[in-house]
Amino acid sequence: MSSHHYIEVVDQYIQSLNESDLNGILSLYADVATVEDPVGSKVISGIDNLREFYTVAVKIKLKIIRTGPVRIAGSEAAFPFRLQMSVGGVYTRTDVIDVFRFNKDGKIVSMRAYHGPENRSVIDEEDF
Amino acid sequence: MSSHHYIEVVDQYIQSLNESDLNGILSLYADVATVEDPVGSKVISGIDNLREFYTVAVKIKLKIIRTGPVRIAGSEAAFPFRLQMSVGGVYTRTDVIDVFRFNKDGKIVSMRAYHGPENRSVIDEEDF
Repeated sequence: MSSHHYIEVVDQYIQSLNESDLNGILSLYADVATVEDPVGSKVISGIDNLREFYTVAVKIKLKIIRTGPVRIAGSEAAFPFRLQMSVGGVYTRTDVIDVFRFNKDGKIVSMRAYHGPENRSVIDEEDF
Repeated sequence: MSSHHYIEVVDQYIQSLNESDLNGILSLYADVATVEDPVGSKVISGIDNLREFYTVAVKIKLKIIRTGPVRIAGSEAAFPFRLQMSVGGVYTRTDVIDVFRFNKDGKIVSMRAYHGPENRSVIDEEDF
């Protein structure tokens, strides 16, 4: 797979999340894919469990902006982004780095999200 | 280990590279550490081989600037940076994301560097 494809998948992933497009997100993943979000938490495995995970995600009011270029190496991609969320009337901003590993068909087989409490801050509603 | 420690190690790593401080770099690593730079290339294993790898690195004229916050998750850290290098009179700029995994003593046991040809551009000497 070309690095162009990997970059396209990253941007489709961000767009699908911003548009709450559940099937759009899942179409980028292999059936056997795993998600670890954040890194160090329980690994979610298989497309059915991913569907459950992202069903919750797309119900949240969120806004994602990529904050730097997609880094491509081997069959992996890493990219920085800013995630803004509104949960229960509280607005937050989190700086995240996601790492995708791809299979030979160009589908994501592993997603790992790097972020912790010190990457999150509460923001005003007008800054959302 | 606290996330504060991880962030400190990241910034010491960058400073040591900028100062060509070989022992400073190696002091951050566990003896059994591995380096994969870029991801997908041969994994370098053990402090003796790391010494060889970084001996080459510190001989290169380079300048590293972190371009976003260190993301901390579990016992890992990911951070974006810009690497400027001069090799054989050619000046380049590369956007990289490094991922460190730490052991219980707070030493780096795994470093993986995400960057590829599309993350690199040739720059003018005055932009170095």
